[in-house]
Amino acid sequence: MAETPEPDAAHMARAVELAARGHGATSPNPVVGCVVLDAAGQVAGEGFHAFAGGPHAEVVALEQAGERARGGTAYVTLEPCDHTGRTGPCSGALLRAGVSRVVVAVPDPTPKAAGGAERLRAAGVEVRVGVLEAEAERVNEEWLTYARLGRPHVTWKLAATLDGRSAAEDGTSQWITSPEARADVHRLRAASDAVMAGIGTVLADDPRLTARPAPPQDPRPDDPRPDDPCPDDPRLTGRQGLPHGLPDGPRPPSARRVPLRVVVDSDARTPPTARVLDGQAPTLVAVAEDAPAALDADLLRLPRRDGGLDLEALLRELAARDVVSVFLEGGPTLAGSFMRHGLVDRVVAYLAPAFLGSGRAALGPAGVRSVSGIHRLVFDDVTPIGPDLRLTARPPHRVREQ
Amino acid sequence: MAETPEPDAAHMARAVELAARGHGATSPNPVVGCVVLDAAGQVAGEGFHAFAGGPHAEVVALEQAGERARGGTAYVTLEPCDHTGRTGPCSGALLRAGVSRVVVAVPDPTPKAAGGAERLRAAGVEVRVGVLEAEAERVNEEWLTYARLGRPHVTWKLAATLDGRSAAEDGTSQWITSPEARADVHRLRAASDAVMAGIGTVLADDPRLTARPAPPQDPRPDDPRPDDPCPDDPRLTGRQGLPHGLPDGPRPPSARRVPLRVVVDSDARTPPTARVLDGQAPTLVAVAEDAPAALDADLLRLPRRDGGLDLEALLRELAARDVVSVFLEGGPTLAGSFMRHGLVDRVVAYLAPAFLGSGRAALGPAGVRSVSGIHRLVFDDVTPIGPDLRLTARPPHRVREQ
Repeated sequence: MAETPEPDAAHMARAVELAARGHGATSPNPVVGCVVLDAAGQVAGEGFHAFAGGPHAEVVALEQAGERARGGTAYVTLEPCDHTGRTGPCSGALLRAGVSRVVVAVPDPTPKAAGGAERLRAAGVEVRVGVLEAEAERVNEEWLTYARLGRPHVTWKLAATLDGRSAAEDGTSQWITSPEARADVHRLRAASDAVMAGIGTVLADDPRLTARPAPPQDPRPDDPRPDDPCPDDPRLTGRQGLPHGLPDGPRPPSARRVPLRVVVDSDARTPPTARVLDGQAPTLVAVAEDAPAALDADLLRLPRRDGGLDLEALLRELAARDVVSVFLEGGPTLAGSFMRHGLVDRVVAYLAPAFLGSGRAALGPAGVRSVSGIHRLVFDDVTPIGPDLRLTARPPHRVREQ
Repeated sequence: MAETPEPDAAHMARAVELAARGHGATSPNPVVGCVVLDAAGQVAGEGFHAFAGGPHAEVVALEQAGERARGGTAYVTLEPCDHTGRTGPCSGALLRAGVSRVVVAVPDPTPKAAGGAERLRAAGVEVRVGVLEAEAERVNEEWLTYARLGRPHVTWKLAATLDGRSAAEDGTSQWITSPEARADVHRLRAASDAVMAGIGTVLADDPRLTARPAPPQDPRPDDPRPDDPCPDDPRLTGRQGLPHGLPDGPRPPSARRVPLRVVVDSDARTPPTARVLDGQAPTLVAVAEDAPAALDADLLRLPRRDGGLDLEALLRELAARDVVSVFLEGGPTLAGSFMRHGLVDRVVAYLAPAFLGSGRAALGPAGVRSVSGIHRLVFDDVTPIGPDLRLTARPPHRVREQ
C-alpha cells in the first residue's frame, strides 16, 4: 500500500481501527468504521458499527460532524450500503450531509447492498475505492467470507505441544498450554457466533464450550443507540430466527450474543449429562439424518459424507441461522475433515514450549497422502501469550499481502 | 540486569558481541570477547578469541590498547584463565598491562583454569564478576555445558508442520520447510562440532549431514595470529586426537573444522553406499558392543541401553574427541531418546505454516505417559525464516532470565 497517498491511508487506518471496536458484536452485520473530515481536512466525526441493530458507522460519524461534513470527505472501511429503487440510508445520508468526497476500502460484495459507490458518483461525489483494502479486508474477514461464500468464516483453534500433541498417551491434556493462553481462547470464543467441537472431544474432555465474559470493547457512550437507521438493510435480514437466546432487536455492546455451541455428532452419542447440554448457552447438535432420535437437544439433521457429516451443509445451515463466524475447537478428526474440505479460513495455534512424543495428535487425517498434497498456509501473526506462542495462519488466497 | 550500572553493562554488551564472532570456530575452546578502556574511560582495545590455537581475547585487546591499558578497565565475558603455580597468560597479561579494574561476566567453571579473578584481586586489581552474566552465558552456552557437564552441548533440530509431522504418509518429506530454512540449518550445522542422526533417518532419507560452507564471520585482519599465548591452557588439552580431518595447531577462521558426522546405529546397519560414508567429511558410526563388525567405517562401540545405545556414554566419547557441540537432526526415535534422558540443551524448531494430519511425527516416544511428565521448555527466540518460523527453546534451568 506504499503507493497510497499518505492522508487517505492515515484516515482509513483510523477507520479500520474504529471498525475493529465492533468486532464480535455486529453479527450478522459487518464491522464498519468511518471518519469524516470537514472541508478544511480536519477530523469532524468518527463512528463505527457497534452492534447489530445499532446505527451504521457512517450515520454515527456524520451526526457527530453535523454541518462540518458539508464539502468534506468520508472514509468508510466498507462501501456504504444502498438499495436500488429506494433511498439507501448510508449513501443517502452521505449525500444529505453534503460530503464532496468518499473514500472506500472494500467494495460491498452483496448484490443487494452494493451500488453505494455508484449512487454517490452519480450524484457528483468523488469516490475512491481500494484504500487500505487489505487491512479493511482483514478486520472484516468473518463477514466478508460469510457474504461472499454464503457460509460462516471458520477459525480452527489448536492448543498443542511443539510436536503437535494435544493430549498425552493416557489421555490427560490439562494443561498443556498456560492460563494466559486459555484466557485468550475464551476471548476468541466470545467474539465468535458459534463454538464447535466433534463428538470425540465431547466424550473425551466433556468441555463446556462457553466463553467467560469478555471485557467491554472500549464502547463510547455516544455510540450505541437503539434506533436502527437501516431497517431494510439486507445485512440485517434473517435475524428473526436468532437461535442465540437473546431477544432480537437493538442491543448495547455489553449484551453480546452468547456463542452458539455446536456439536458434530453423526450418531447422536452426546450423553444427556454432557456439559455442552448444561443450558448455560444454546446448543445445536448436528446429527445424521438416520441417527437415533433419542437425544433431548436442539438437533440439526444432515446428510452423511466421507464417514462424517456433510460439513458444507452444516455450514450453510449455520449461515441461515446468522452464524457469521465459527470457532472450531477440534478434535483431530473433525479438524481433519474441515481441513480436507478446504473449510478452514484461519488457524490459531497455541503452541506450548513442550514435548510429549506420544499421545493424541492435534490434527487427524486431513486427506494428505504425499507431501505434494500438504495443506500450506501463510503465517501472518506471532504473539507470545504467557509462556506460549499464538501463531495465526491463513490459506494463501486469504492473505492479500505479506 | 536492570540494576547493572549502565557503563559496565554497555561495555560488557560489546564484549559479548565480540565473543559471538568466534562462534563455531573456537572448539574446544570457549568464545570470549574483551574490551579494554584507558584510564579516562575511552575504548582503547577490543578483541575476541577467533579460533582454537589463536590468541585469547584479552591478549588481542591488550595488545591493541598498548600503553593506554595502564590504569584502565578490562571487560571480559569469561573469567581470564589462570594456572596455579604458573604465570597464567591472561591474568598475567592483564597484570603486566597495568589495568586497575577487571569486569567479568561469567566465572570460569573449570577447576584448572579458574582462579584468574582471585589472582588479579590478590595483585590489587579491582574485580567485578557477574555483569551481563546471562548474555555471556548464552553466547558461550556450548562450551559452558561441555566444561560443566563433561559432555557436548546438544541442539535438537526439527523441521515440521504445525501439527508436528516431518514426513507425509508415503514417507515424502521434500520439502516441508523452505529453502531459507534449509540454508539456516546449514549455517547451524557449520557452527557445530558434530552433526548426528539415527540409523532410521539414514535408511529413510540418506542424508549427507554435511554443511555447505558458511560465510566468514566478519574476521578482522589483525585478529588471527599463529602464536598461541596460552600453550598450557587446559582448554586446549586433548586436541591431539582431533578426528576432524584437519591438522592440529593454529588455523585461521576461514579453515573451520568440518563437522564430524555421527550415525547412531546400534546394529551396524548403515549401508556402505550411504551418503554419510561418502568421505566428504569424517564420519563416526556408533554401534553396540555386540554389533557385527562388517561395516567399513570409523566405529565407536558402546553399551546398549533402553533398546538403543547408551547416549551418555556416546556423548562422553564425543567430548573426549573435543566435540563441544552436537547438532542432532533426528529422527524421531533418536530425538525421543535424547529427550527422555534429559540430554537436549536447546531445541531449534523450524515450523512451516502447513498441515499434514498424518505421516511421520517429528518426535517419537520420549518417556512421557501422562501430561504431568511433559518435557517443558522455555521459548527464548522466535525468528521468521522465509515463510517459516524458527523457534528456539531451552530447558528452564538453561534459561537464566526471561
